[in-house]
Amino acid sequence: MPEPKQIRVVGIGTGDPEHLTLQAVRALRDVDAVFVLDKRAETADLVTVRTRICAAHIRKPYRLVTVADPPRARRPADYAATVDAWHAERAERLEAAFAESLAAGEVGAVLVWGDPALYDSILRILDRIRARGRLALTCEIVPGLSSVSVLAARHGVPLNTIGGAVQITTGRRLAAGWPAGVDSVVVMLDGDPTFAGLDPDLTVHWGAYLGSPDEILVAGRLGAVADEIRRVRAEARARHGWIMDIYLLVRRAEAGTP
Amino acid sequence: MPEPKQIRVVGIGTGDPEHLTLQAVRALRDVDAVFVLDKRAETADLVTVRTRICAAHIRKPYRLVTVADPPRARRPADYAATVDAWHAERAERLEAAFAESLAAGEVGAVLVWGDPALYDSILRILDRIRARGRLALTCEIVPGLSSVSVLAARHGVPLNTIGGAVQITTGRRLAAGWPAGVDSVVVMLDGDPTFAGLDPDLTVHWGAYLGSPDEILVAGRLGAVADEIRRVRAEARARHGWIMDIYLLVRRAEAGTP
Repeated sequence: MPEPKQIRVVGIGTGDPEHLTLQAVRALRDVDAVFVLDKRAETADLVTVRTRICAAHIRKPYRLVTVADPPRARRPADYAATVDAWHAERAERLEAAFAESLAAGEVGAVLVWGDPALYDSILRILDRIRARGRLALTCEIVPGLSSVSVLAARHGVPLNTIGGAVQITTGRRLAAGWPAGVDSVVVMLDGDPTFAGLDPDLTVHWGAYLGSPDEILVAGRLGAVADEIRRVRAEARARHGWIMDIYLLVRRAEAGTP
Repeated sequence: MPEPKQIRVVGIGTGDPEHLTLQAVRALRDVDAVFVLDKRAETADLVTVRTRICAAHIRKPYRLVTVADPPRARRPADYAATVDAWHAERAERLEAAFAESLAAGEVGAVLVWGDPALYDSILRILDRIRARGRLALTCEIVPGLSSVSVLAARHGVPLNTIGGAVQITTGRRLAAGWPAGVDSVVVMLDGDPTFAGLDPDLTVHWGAYLGSPDEILVAGRLGAVADEIRRVRAEARARHGWIMDIYLLVRRAEAGTP
């Protein structure tokens, strides 16, 4: 049995190199190879941040291995089955990259924006690779600052109402209506926030490019700022060629009340 | 108008000093005073971690100011009103401490376990102090690694099912039943997890003292491990004199499936 390859999945926060934890800094120090899942044709801005993080914290010569992403249907009829097939294909590609580019006993890092546990496929993909049983791997997960926490901090607001629940969900799910029993909803992965059918008296805290020099924040009564968010978002997306954004909706306007 | 006092609310993660972000490290560097809200009669273990963090990162002589907590009813009839009165009293005490122990232009830090935006009253208390308008304050929020992210990382599991929503809630709310429309529920602040009325086929990932040398993890089918969690939890609580724990419940047993 050969010495296992070590894989460290490292959450790196949302675009500010200072979002790294000390644990992440230590995890990067002796890395032999960094594996980049070329997920959404990342643009120069994101590649620059990641390169800067690697240069600052990896203390030995390292290899950068880009794993091309399989194509993925944008609006598939069967979402779960499509994602499943896509994960299977990504697992094969990443396994091949580990096999080719990492010697036994070496350490590979997979850098993940935000927190690896939230709306990222890497943990499921590593599970698949381990389940196939062809590679001897040990995996360590280093949690990262999620965009949820950064959004709240940048707006200076709590996520939950007093004693209330917080739901983290997707644009796709929110379109089906306000979830039952919660006062706070954080929406990730909303490619086109229409805010349709929502109570205009909700308070919204929206943010894009959180933590980066390009950060944009808009907050207010949903009915008053929804159009502004859509306009600002479209302009920023056109200017940058991409956008990563997230928003918090709160049922009672708690922010600022004594 | 005197130069404002600067307050930095710094999330410090869950008990591992390496949970600090580089941003938190920088925010602590030039702090003149650290304000400790003596929230739950913190025990020696927690005080040791906080003291170690301050000693490692504050680069000048600093004052440690403990703000005693007002008493709080444990099971009040009107939860929201009780919390409201309690926040008002904490705001008065913290404002007095800022006024007495921080000169104009000086920097004070309030250290918060986990992330300041999640089930912590500090942001609401600072809002109250600012609304009273007696002190000139500037506030900066430094987000922290939440116990939610650390729990998922230590178990090596994603929080969400594919495309699914995640609800973060309290033991009090979970007792009312499984929330509608979600597959993943993270429960914080459950002083006595009975798991009563829950589907025994749920998968549970439980953790206590996350990130610390005393960390305990239990995972499995709820029906199989619920008793073990309750037993381990009671023993640990008796041994340490306190416990901080959190758990993730997932409706479909996704972990480990290919």
